[in-house]
Amino acid sequence: MSTGRLEAFSDGVFAIVNTLLVLELHVPAPGAHSLASELGALWPTYAAFLASFLVVGICWLNHHAVIGLLSTTTHGLQVANLVLLLTVTVLPFPTAVLGSYARGGTAADHRTGVLLYGGASIAMSLGFQLLWRYVLHHPELHRPGVTRAQLSTRDKRYTIGLAAYPLVTLLGLISTPLFLVLMLALAFLFLLPTPDTRVAAQESD
Amino acid sequence: MSTGRLEAFSDGVFAIVNTLLVLELHVPAPGAHSLASELGALWPTYAAFLASFLVVGICWLNHHAVIGLLSTTTHGLQVANLVLLLTVTVLPFPTAVLGSYARGGTAADHRTGVLLYGGASIAMSLGFQLLWRYVLHHPELHRPGVTRAQLSTRDKRYTIGLAAYPLVTLLGLISTPLFLVLMLALAFLFLLPTPDTRVAAQESD
Amino acid sequence: MSTGRLEAFSDGVFAIVNTLLVLELHVPAPGAHSLASELGALWPTYAAFLASFLVVGICWLNHHAVIGLLSTTTHGLQVANLVLLLTVTVLPFPTAVLGSYARGGTAADHRTGVLLYGGASIAMSLGFQLLWRYVLHHPELHRPGVTRAQLSTRDKRYTIGLAAYPLVTLLGLISTPLFLVLMLALAFLFLLPTPDTRVAAQESD
Amino acid sequence: MSTGRLEAFSDGVFAIVNTLLVLELHVPAPGAHSLASELGALWPTYAAFLASFLVVGICWLNHHAVIGLLSTTTHGLQVANLVLLLTVTVLPFPTAVLGSYARGGTAADHRTGVLLYGGASIAMSLGFQLLWRYVLHHPELHRPGVTRAQLSTRDKRYTIGLAAYPLVTLLGLISTPLFLVLMLALAFLFLLPTPDTRVAAQESD
Repeated sequence: MSTGRLEAFSDGVFAIVNTLLVLELHVPAPGAHSLASELGALWPTYAAFLASFLVVGICWLNHHAVIGLLSTTTHGLQVANLVLLLTVTVLPFPTAVLGSYARGGTAADHRTGVLLYGGASIAMSLGFQLLWRYVLHHPELHRPGVTRAQLSTRDKRYTIGLAAYPLVTLLGLISTPLFLVLMLALAFLFLLPTPDTRVAAQESD
Repeated sequence: MSTGRLEAFSDGVFAIVNTLLVLELHVPAPGAHSLASELGALWPTYAAFLASFLVVGICWLNHHAVIGLLSTTTHGLQVANLVLLLTVTVLPFPTAVLGSYARGGTAADHRTGVLLYGGASIAMSLGFQLLWRYVLHHPELHRPGVTRAQLSTRDKRYTIGLAAYPLVTLLGLISTPLFLVLMLALAFLFLLPTPDTRVAAQESD
Repeated sequence: MSTGRLEAFSDGVFAIVNTLLVLELHVPAPGAHSLASELGALWPTYAAFLASFLVVGICWLNHHAVIGLLSTTTHGLQVANLVLLLTVTVLPFPTAVLGSYARGGTAADHRTGVLLYGGASIAMSLGFQLLWRYVLHHPELHRPGVTRAQLSTRDKRYTIGLAAYPLVTLLGLISTPLFLVLMLALAFLFLLPTPDTRVAAQESD
Repeated sequence: MSTGRLEAFSDGVFAIVNTLLVLELHVPAPGAHSLASELGALWPTYAAFLASFLVVGICWLNHHAVIGLLSTTTHGLQVANLVLLLTVTVLPFPTAVLGSYARGGTAADHRTGVLLYGGASIAMSLGFQLLWRYVLHHPELHRPGVTRAQLSTRDKRYTIGLAAYPLVTLLGLISTPLFLVLMLALAFLFLLPTPDTRVAAQESD
């Protein structure tokens, strides 16, 4: 079983989730206010959209890098991948909840929205860990030339990622705008190139 | 006609259906209850979402395995594949009906929702059988090295699968929560590795 | 420019359109009638869904066959392909209009729905003709081994297809159910294997 | 890192955005007017749909051409590509706003709709420039045989494109129908073959 169809199916899911997010941006119904002010009031929805787009994009980049280590797949890897994709496909729902309750909900509803979104991003990072651990512990699936040093650098980076989402979720209980700002800051941080990224890109040419 | 585009098109459909399911999770309108309790009340929708995601994921895994046996396709195979995909694309509709009528519908509506969803999963397993029978009876399309023993092990497994959905649907007429639990249990069962899976994965390397 | 990305993009569009059609099946709001009778009343929506799924599926099969004749693409072919895909992506809209006005609209609205859907399928067959004519008149793009006889058999078949949709649309002005039955009959007819299909499949192995 | 998965993911996003646009065409609710006149009143929605389909299609063609210059990718290119895709996935939202406020909104709302849509298309052309500049300034990623002359011809063309959207947006502030006509005219202009297109197609065979 080559990794071709696993990649094609996963690319499809990542691409579709990122594109479906826009369906949660609803055209404001004509009302008492001007369209411009109605659109302005939607800012938490835009921030949630942007955060989710970046979270999914980063997950896709990491997925790409991890699957690129493999020359073959197994049933177990397919199942681990399916679990990761499940957590990815769910994301538009907490995105929509967070975006729509950030304007005008009660303080308790704000916290619920943050917990739901934070929980979904934690689930996604756990799903990714499941896939990563499987790959790490099945060296027989690796492509020739994958080194122990390379695996260990990545392992360190992915483990740091695992702590970030719970922390941001806890801080987000203080305020939804703070949560959105922290999620966006985290995403920009994760998109920065690391020495490892540059090396990995060269190695897998 | 190689199997490349048939796989690409099918992967697209499987990935999209699995991702569209999330659109049936609607943001609760602000109301008398807290967001947390509104979200909690949506549990049958989550269970139906999860069951459908897994059913489609399993169908994709099996599709992957069956098409992997072939080195070429024919018009007949394309049509059989199209029939299977038709039954797959339909699934979000019964998922949405089941999820929304499980809360608060009449007993008759519950049974209708179960029959609709059960019927859709039976249609999907029949669609898969159609594809499988076609592949089984056209050895001239097989890749070199596909053995009679391999085909017969799979045939046994897929035939057991065929009996499972009608049985669960019948039991589901007793209660919708029971139906959801049984569908999820069935999905987890189908995801377990079998001796055949391991062998197939090795053979098709 | 190889045909790889043109196929990937087109496969994506075909797969997504076929899957989005299900979003037009709306869960009936709980009302005076039982869920079962509400679902039964949706039959024109199901028929329109099925007709559109098959029309898009057939177009995909023909697209597959036509692009399979080529070894390379040009800007002109890409544009012709884009025009065809435009007519394909539009289809869910007339499908939804036809399905929802077939129950309870005025006689004039029925005719409008039939003309809209018929017009969309005619546009799609014209879009396909545009692509086909382009391929037919650019033999320098063909793969080695594509014969004049093969092209001429296909040309005959596609030209017959061109006449079918206007005819069915005209007859459909009599009644929407008749239109749906004829569209479905036409789709089943187009899915039948032809001597040419079998030959083409063998030739392009 | 080969360009294969970057292309697959991008093709997915382009194809899905182009197909999701149709979801903004809503079936008119039965009302005082005939279906035919209700459908006729939706013309700005159709024009916005067509403009967006063509804008995305052209962006896909250019993306195709630019990525075709490369033999390998880097983390930086992946991030630039993700930024471009972000601007692409957003497009259905301004399309829906423009289409629905073009009928019956105030003059200020019309201008807001035009600015939103114009802003989105400018963002998209800036996203494309980011990708293009990255490719232009990393000759070590180019495929063998990519010439300086070829790059310079493209650079000129893409820079002209950069000026077009701001200009059309400014003129569009006069009237929404004028904006839609200019956007469509621009799209048809961009689809015309250029000497460069023909050469590029031959070179990359």
